[in-house]
Amino acid sequence: MMKEKIAIIGGGLSGSLLAICLAKRGFKIDLYERRGDMRKGKAEAGRSINLALSTRGIEALNKVGLAEQVLDEAIPMNGRLMHSIKGELTFQPYGKEGQFINSVSRSGLNIKLLELADAYENVTIHFNHRCVNANLDQNIAIVENPEGKKIEVKADIMFGTDGAFSAVRTEIQKTPRFNYSQTYENYGYKELEITPGPDAKHLIEKNALHIWPRGEFMMIALPNPGGSFTCTLFLPHEGKISFEHMETEEQVRNFYTTYFPDALKMMPGLVHDFFANPTGDLVTIRCNPWVYKKFVLVGDAAHALIPFYGQGMNCSFEDVKELDEIIEQHYPDWDLICDTYQEARIANANAIADLACKNFVEMRDLVGRPDFMHYKHVEHDLAEHYPEVFKSQYSLVTFATTPYSYALAQGFKNEALINYIIEHKLESELKNSDVMLPLLKDFLG
Amino acid sequence: MMKEKIAIIGGGLSGSLLAICLAKRGFKIDLYERRGDMRKGKAEAGRSINLALSTRGIEALNKVGLAEQVLDEAIPMNGRLMHSIKGELTFQPYGKEGQFINSVSRSGLNIKLLELADAYENVTIHFNHRCVNANLDQNIAIVENPEGKKIEVKADIMFGTDGAFSAVRTEIQKTPRFNYSQTYENYGYKELEITPGPDAKHLIEKNALHIWPRGEFMMIALPNPGGSFTCTLFLPHEGKISFEHMETEEQVRNFYTTYFPDALKMMPGLVHDFFANPTGDLVTIRCNPWVYKKFVLVGDAAHALIPFYGQGMNCSFEDVKELDEIIEQHYPDWDLICDTYQEARIANANAIADLACKNFVEMRDLVGRPDFMHYKHVEHDLAEHYPEVFKSQYSLVTFATTPYSYALAQGFKNEALINYIIEHKLESELKNSDVMLPLLKDFLG
Repeated sequence: MMKEKIAIIGGGLSGSLLAICLAKRGFKIDLYERRGDMRKGKAEAGRSINLALSTRGIEALNKVGLAEQVLDEAIPMNGRLMHSIKGELTFQPYGKEGQFINSVSRSGLNIKLLELADAYENVTIHFNHRCVNANLDQNIAIVENPEGKKIEVKADIMFGTDGAFSAVRTEIQKTPRFNYSQTYENYGYKELEITPGPDAKHLIEKNALHIWPRGEFMMIALPNPGGSFTCTLFLPHEGKISFEHMETEEQVRNFYTTYFPDALKMMPGLVHDFFANPTGDLVTIRCNPWVYKKFVLVGDAAHALIPFYGQGMNCSFEDVKELDEIIEQHYPDWDLICDTYQEARIANANAIADLACKNFVEMRDLVGRPDFMHYKHVEHDLAEHYPEVFKSQYSLVTFATTPYSYALAQGFKNEALINYIIEHKLESELKNSDVMLPLLKDFLG
Repeated sequence: MMKEKIAIIGGGLSGSLLAICLAKRGFKIDLYERRGDMRKGKAEAGRSINLALSTRGIEALNKVGLAEQVLDEAIPMNGRLMHSIKGELTFQPYGKEGQFINSVSRSGLNIKLLELADAYENVTIHFNHRCVNANLDQNIAIVENPEGKKIEVKADIMFGTDGAFSAVRTEIQKTPRFNYSQTYENYGYKELEITPGPDAKHLIEKNALHIWPRGEFMMIALPNPGGSFTCTLFLPHEGKISFEHMETEEQVRNFYTTYFPDALKMMPGLVHDFFANPTGDLVTIRCNPWVYKKFVLVGDAAHALIPFYGQGMNCSFEDVKELDEIIEQHYPDWDLICDTYQEARIANANAIADLACKNFVEMRDLVGRPDFMHYKHVEHDLAEHYPEVFKSQYSLVTFATTPYSYALAQGFKNEALINYIIEHKLESELKNSDVMLPLLKDFLG
């Protein structure tokens, strides 16, 4: 039996992973990527340089045998390390002993995926091919080749993995009764750098995600191999303290002197980078359905998240993993495959979008407050003493593959329980299972 | 001083009312309307034939001296009249004695507004001119004239009043950081007719809005002059009982025989109309901002509502009224006018969009349930006995001009109060102000 011909529009993280999964199943795959071959050039400006890889992403990479190799080059981050204005440090572990997330290079990972995809005889990668349009009823994508000529790409199944501003989705948006929303934060972000120390040593704790929470804004930093950190400043576009008031070198330097004095010392390129690097936007995109006829959206094209739960890539990889498992189960019934896929994923994508929005407030503000630190201690102790019954929302999202929608719902129950414990001053009873087990049962049922 | 030149894109209800308001202020106005002159032709298929005009809309019409004339031809509806499957009738008044909403003809009202606008020397109406594009940075709308030629329309201020699928908004959607959502109900709607009786008499109660609530679907009917009613059937697109299963005349007749037997007798054209009339979609559209440079969205172009609170036109007319008052106050500072306008209206448009969604469940399902009837009785008694302190959400929306967002918030408080009264079986105390006044104070603050 002749297997279907498949076109994948977009060769970023999701598209290249999907190409590998489908190649393993013997499909004939053509992958079209807007940009040039990143194995030969440098990464595009304005994309995040490193990303936090956690369980969902690792499980997906495992399916194509890449997890071990990727983790070998990653830097474990055991928790959040908060920097106060005075330079005091506070640490919050992400999970139990031995649980961590992993700082990985976006371009490094993308290159690994493209190399593996390219190694399959049944995969052809077309770089510098930009999708500009589609004829959804005839399984055709219109793609502009490097000579500027528009060519018709036709396949039995067409995947749109072309990111938050997906050209494929733009066409699907024109079909009847398509539900769609794009919501921008009033914040922008800018990538900056903390330089390596002598001998490529990290100047601050290597195995942590650093946060400088300042209430209405914040900076974070993730470690890179070679001793540097990639910092991201999240700041309102407009208002008293905002990007619109960072027009001169002096304004930027004063801002850092006032709010991030400890970091400033390690950021010699600050002023240059601040004006050289673009200011990015933060957008949440939701849509429904993800499938129109033979066109299927995967990854950011279906659900763009803001980055505050570190789940954008992990969620997209999980899309691919689940899609692959559904193909395993229902092939060759593509209608059933597509229906099952979107049924399984849409609610979860909406849940992690909600969680990411909620986490922004937590990161930029709450983590700097003593009452929140206390809350996190109680949560941590519950997870430690009652591991079978209590799991924090963070660990359900990050160190498990239970559906995001379950993590969202369970989080509300956890919150009620922890607030009850604090209100009734039961912290001293946390190890007393005679008191705690009935409570856990009441609240978490 | 030379007053600004203003272009209005869209000559429906909002656009023509806006033209009159601005004409009275002496601006030079060009109004572009996609359709032909409806004073000479027939109304477009697929738009609702009649609408419920209430206080907000009346106040706006008052500003241009049209309220009395419009109300003269309207049919008052004092409340909802529910039809059970067995043909039993139940009545719920909309407000106090003498409070009612008004069934008016959409095309009749639109024609009146166009005639009045046309009577101003400083207004030029261009029919059969369809906006296809815009150059937002240069105050230009590209409009196709009846000969199919694209012309550039340039003015100092450009208003987009071109409805839910606004071409002006489509251009604004391409600007950075535009927040946008379109959400479709899984329901469609179809307009049908109950014929006049002998001597143009109404065959069922004339002064009511009729509802046939059937849980997952419903039909409603609004009276027309001449004895007919325009019915609207709201039914899921897909599923067991849905439009997809209404493919044969027999299926339609059986469906009406089973669920609407009393109405069927008065609907001789049912089968013909069912297949001749289009099935409409129900969409809620929200966006933010409503202003980009000199382009300003008004009415459905800024906020498409589903029709279940009868506020689509009323909300749009209120946009125009408030905009006109803001111009009065801040002219000639157009930046301040635009900012004040969207600041004032966006939250209210979101609130009425929420209320309209909530009311769909109430109309198609709850109104047919005895416990809900009881709830409405308690609410009605509270409004009757404590008119200074208690106002129902419906009356805040329909018989007042308090902000929709206030009505939304107040509704939640009312609900808690009424549920408390019912739970504690305090119905016999409703007239006892010693019991009620403290309760009202507790719940409504």
